[in-house]
Amino acid sequence: MIELVLGGARSGKSAYAESLLKRSGSNVVYIATAQAFDQEMSERILHHQLQRPAEWQLIESPLVLAETLDSLSNSEHYLLVDCLTLWLSNHLLADESSLAAEIDRLLAVLARMSCRVLLVSNEVGMGIVPENRLARRFRDEAGWLNQRVAQIADKVTLVTAGMPLVLKGQNL
Amino acid sequence: MIELVLGGARSGKSAYAESLLKRSGSNVVYIATAQAFDQEMSERILHHQLQRPAEWQLIESPLVLAETLDSLSNSEHYLLVDCLTLWLSNHLLADESSLAAEIDRLLAVLARMSCRVLLVSNEVGMGIVPENRLARRFRDEAGWLNQRVAQIADKVTLVTAGMPLVLKGQNL
Amino acid sequence: MIELVLGGARSGKSAYAESLLKRSGSNVVYIATAQAFDQEMSERILHHQLQRPAEWQLIESPLVLAETLDSLSNSEHYLLVDCLTLWLSNHLLADESSLAAEIDRLLAVLARMSCRVLLVSNEVGMGIVPENRLARRFRDEAGWLNQRVAQIADKVTLVTAGMPLVLKGQNL
Repeated sequence: MIELVLGGARSGKSAYAESLLKRSGSNVVYIATAQAFDQEMSERILHHQLQRPAEWQLIESPLVLAETLDSLSNSEHYLLVDCLTLWLSNHLLADESSLAAEIDRLLAVLARMSCRVLLVSNEVGMGIVPENRLARRFRDEAGWLNQRVAQIADKVTLVTAGMPLVLKGQNL
Repeated sequence: MIELVLGGARSGKSAYAESLLKRSGSNVVYIATAQAFDQEMSERILHHQLQRPAEWQLIESPLVLAETLDSLSNSEHYLLVDCLTLWLSNHLLADESSLAAEIDRLLAVLARMSCRVLLVSNEVGMGIVPENRLARRFRDEAGWLNQRVAQIADKVTLVTAGMPLVLKGQNL
Repeated sequence: MIELVLGGARSGKSAYAESLLKRSGSNVVYIATAQAFDQEMSERILHHQLQRPAEWQLIESPLVLAETLDSLSNSEHYLLVDCLTLWLSNHLLADESSLAAEIDRLLAVLARMSCRVLLVSNEVGMGIVPENRLARRFRDEAGWLNQRVAQIADKVTLVTAGMPLVLKGQNL
């Protein structure tokens, strides 16, 4: 089963996603896509780590997310990917030209996962058009990626101020 | 009947709107407000065109939208306006001083349409206050315009990651 | 009872909040957090003032909101705070170092209010990451503040294009 949890910055989407996994009682693999480029990012990563149960397995996968998921496709674990938009951003900064192929590969892997996967992603398209070209490209790609994942997802939830709103599927 | 489909950039709002018109089985007039100022915009316009049925009539109306709609007010066709925020932006760039009058004229025409009209519009107010004065003006005007159209609309839908959420009216 | 009304810029959140208070028939204290630094802000404040009933009491509280609310905690009035994000912004500009303590104080006061309080706040996290450090800080703090207030609120509503969507609680 594929679940997508969407939300803006500081919307509480990660905490909401984590609460779902905690309540499930499942063994969890937490797949982190964040890369600590600077002090600010390191602090954000640490802030998130401190809120997660110590027994959750951690895999850091800033770029090869498709391969990571593929290797776990028959896992008994409940997989939490946090977050899709950071993975997208990592690829955009690393090699813009291979982005389309990477996204296709990720979608193909997601479509054949037989374990439970929850993906967290940012909603970034509800502000003014950014003046920066790369920011516009990122905004476009993030919106398209969210649409494609939502389409194959069994459940899509939008989180605002910590409050979940189901956009697709039932409260499972 | 007036319908408003709102969404952020790359939210899938246009594709959702088009799916509604395709399913209706109606004859459609597609009213495009986009102007191709540059390569990037030309590509976006082409991208949208390729996804629309060839039998839909196309009217390009980047500025005189009120007049275009007025001339079709008794049409048997289902009219799709994509999108309101581009029309607003075109007027803001062309002549800021006449904007208020243009918006009043559009609202007056919408209120007396006797055919079915679906308008697509951008939600642009959920980010940080823009530093650019014109961007702030645009954000204000877009928000106010969306409110006024929503008020006279029979149905308002917000699209996020391709998923529709009805804010006003029923699933018609 | 604590109510939170969230929305983007020009979403109609203030007008929606005010309509709730008007319909309640209660005596209202309007607590304004806005400060007029410039012409543009003065116009926005005036625009809002003209839409409010003349009999509503007005308290301007750009910084000492916790103390203002505390002094009214047993009031028979229905209190409207418009808005939380301006109060946050005022503190961030005045003294960034005391912000955390100010927020804790406000939350503590809100938790023990025995009168009806409606707080209006901006959703600012659904755009692209701002390039400006202070804007990123503001976006983070606003998101976290909204989450904390939502958590203790009896009702949370998101307004888009003037249309309310209940995220928590019932239509009271």
